[in-house]
Amino acid sequence: MRIQVAIIGAGPAGLLLSHLLRLAGIGSIVLESRSREHCEHRIRAGVLEQGTVDTLSEAGLDARMQREGLVHHGIELLFEGKRHRIALSTLTGGRAITVYGQHEVVCDMIASAVEHRQALYFDVSDVALHDLATARPWVQFTHDGAVQRIDCDYVAGCDGFHGISRESIPPGALQRFERVYPYAWLGILTHAAPNCDELVYAHHARGFALFSMRSPDVTRLYLQCRPGEDLSQWSDERIWIELHARFENDDGWLPAIGDITQKGVTPMRSFVCEPMQYGRLFLAGDAAHIVPPTGAKGMNLAVADVRVLSKALAARYRDGRDDLLDVYSATCLERVWRAEHFSYLMTNMLHPSLDDSPFVERLKLAELKYVTSSDAASRMLAENYVGLPFRD
Amino acid sequence: MRIQVAIIGAGPAGLLLSHLLRLAGIGSIVLESRSREHCEHRIRAGVLEQGTVDTLSEAGLDARMQREGLVHHGIELLFEGKRHRIALSTLTGGRAITVYGQHEVVCDMIASAVEHRQALYFDVSDVALHDLATARPWVQFTHDGAVQRIDCDYVAGCDGFHGISRESIPPGALQRFERVYPYAWLGILTHAAPNCDELVYAHHARGFALFSMRSPDVTRLYLQCRPGEDLSQWSDERIWIELHARFENDDGWLPAIGDITQKGVTPMRSFVCEPMQYGRLFLAGDAAHIVPPTGAKGMNLAVADVRVLSKALAARYRDGRDDLLDVYSATCLERVWRAEHFSYLMTNMLHPSLDDSPFVERLKLAELKYVTSSDAASRMLAENYVGLPFRD
Repeated sequence: MRIQVAIIGAGPAGLLLSHLLRLAGIGSIVLESRSREHCEHRIRAGVLEQGTVDTLSEAGLDARMQREGLVHHGIELLFEGKRHRIALSTLTGGRAITVYGQHEVVCDMIASAVEHRQALYFDVSDVALHDLATARPWVQFTHDGAVQRIDCDYVAGCDGFHGISRESIPPGALQRFERVYPYAWLGILTHAAPNCDELVYAHHARGFALFSMRSPDVTRLYLQCRPGEDLSQWSDERIWIELHARFENDDGWLPAIGDITQKGVTPMRSFVCEPMQYGRLFLAGDAAHIVPPTGAKGMNLAVADVRVLSKALAARYRDGRDDLLDVYSATCLERVWRAEHFSYLMTNMLHPSLDDSPFVERLKLAELKYVTSSDAASRMLAENYVGLPFRD
Repeated sequence: MRIQVAIIGAGPAGLLLSHLLRLAGIGSIVLESRSREHCEHRIRAGVLEQGTVDTLSEAGLDARMQREGLVHHGIELLFEGKRHRIALSTLTGGRAITVYGQHEVVCDMIASAVEHRQALYFDVSDVALHDLATARPWVQFTHDGAVQRIDCDYVAGCDGFHGISRESIPPGALQRFERVYPYAWLGILTHAAPNCDELVYAHHARGFALFSMRSPDVTRLYLQCRPGEDLSQWSDERIWIELHARFENDDGWLPAIGDITQKGVTPMRSFVCEPMQYGRLFLAGDAAHIVPPTGAKGMNLAVADVRVLSKALAARYRDGRDDLLDVYSATCLERVWRAEHFSYLMTNMLHPSLDDSPFVERLKLAELKYVTSSDAASRMLAENYVGLPFRD
């Protein structure tokens, strides 16, 4: 089999790339090791930047998102018992965020791929990338019991942090930057109508907590916990007591209680590899970088990478120009490091940590007060949160 | 001897307090353990916030500062070989900084105190504070060989980080917050006309460097070094080579070389004690808090504290109101923690450190790029650097 671009991974990065390449008249195949069912139900982030929404709209992938997504014009920061609103749209000339689950985005993209008869293989195994440093890379994999080979011009590694793409690069060719945080998030889904219209980020001496929503009937809540937290120690009752302690505030608002339908622990990591390219292999999304979820940047960075990569490949096939591919990594890394810095800042500011001295804990309160009282500081948070404009 | 307010320390805090109290008709005495000569030549910071300049002007202490001080409307950040200007005044609605040495401010204040026959004792020893928790505190000290006692209503502890005032408070009554940085500044004065009009803060892999000026003929330069740096290892030649390496940039500008007339090592520390009051003792300036010099906040915070204290004492003596004295510590600490956070931010952003992971080092570059490219982030730096407006 011969194809122009082989895409490893059917997450938002891989699926969007395949879609954008099709619009540019470039052929691709997507190989995914998990089942379609698994991909469509994998719960991940749910906050889309303005630029992500615009990208999905331009690509014609926005029909259901426009109907079901919840547009938010602000977020709240809660500390020392008081709620403070960051007026995202007012502070950024009208930009907003849209709350729409990543798995919903994936469902929409899979449906579109199926509709357009895109080559999309689920349940593949033994994927191996070969001759990446040459002009004739090829990919081998097993599907339905048969070993197959794809010859291609380029490979896009969109298979996430634990995928095989990055691992296929000789170790000496990559520089890794990493921070593992000494805490994690215990996340729950609860069958209760969200009783606050916007996300609430709470800084409390007992730990961080986040109120968010998945749909008009489902609330999503998070509690800062230890990295290896044992979920069996967290009864529903204990979770609600802890959440209500951390969200305590002057207004008397507290998240509505409902049946807890899902519990899980999310680790907190920052990671970047440089460069995001090796020969004919281009990494995009979590395969190249991870942010802690606090800044809600993960999927948005994946979309930004794929925008850059699809334009670079289009310039290559349409005009025979390699220059955009040559600067793919440098172009993406500018935005990646901005998001890494913002995510680190938000994470550190909002989470008390046993690692912190009392001095640093006081600084976090000073920072929260500043961010909620200075127009410049509020704008700084807002412009990063809704996402800085794309350069192109 | 009986006086309304006993002031310990003849630095900017103590001298300004004495001056402002005199203007409010309140009697005070200033006790200083060092000589007048020493106080007038002690080289410290030299960047005055807009609010500090305004305070000195309102107090009539500005005549020489207006003539000799250098008003700056911007600073420069240099990294990755490029200079970036932060247009302080444009970004803050016209506020500016004034470069005028702290020892010059002290000279002006001492001259004024002498002119107005203020009680100002230098070379005192064995200062001891008594009965601070009562309504009748008293101070004992030795001057010209004689032990003296002052009975007073209030004591102002303005004797710096190493002074006796804070140490006179029972340890259990204070909470201490501290960070000692793993680096220091090697500072020099050089007889060379400053060949750049504004301060230049340089972030370089070899370490931080700062270009500033003391007068039209004298340049002040700093190099990041180890905390216990041995000055005998730093020949003039080595200093110039290191400075020129760290200031290297595309424009080819480098600090002009001249005779080095002074060398010294400045440690880097953040420190706050809470509360800034114990009974009838009020701490102000370095006695209560220390910032690393990077944000140029030290003397400015001292002036801010003294503004609050003089107004609170004036309300006490004029109107019999204690409420402003009661909130003195809380009022000051709001500004103190804001300045501590800003100083910490500037310090961490500009200094590479052996403590940092490669990830954190990359974040510093991302932060520098952001601060010099986003209007909101530039304004954040600018409004803190020129000093946030006083609340009163």
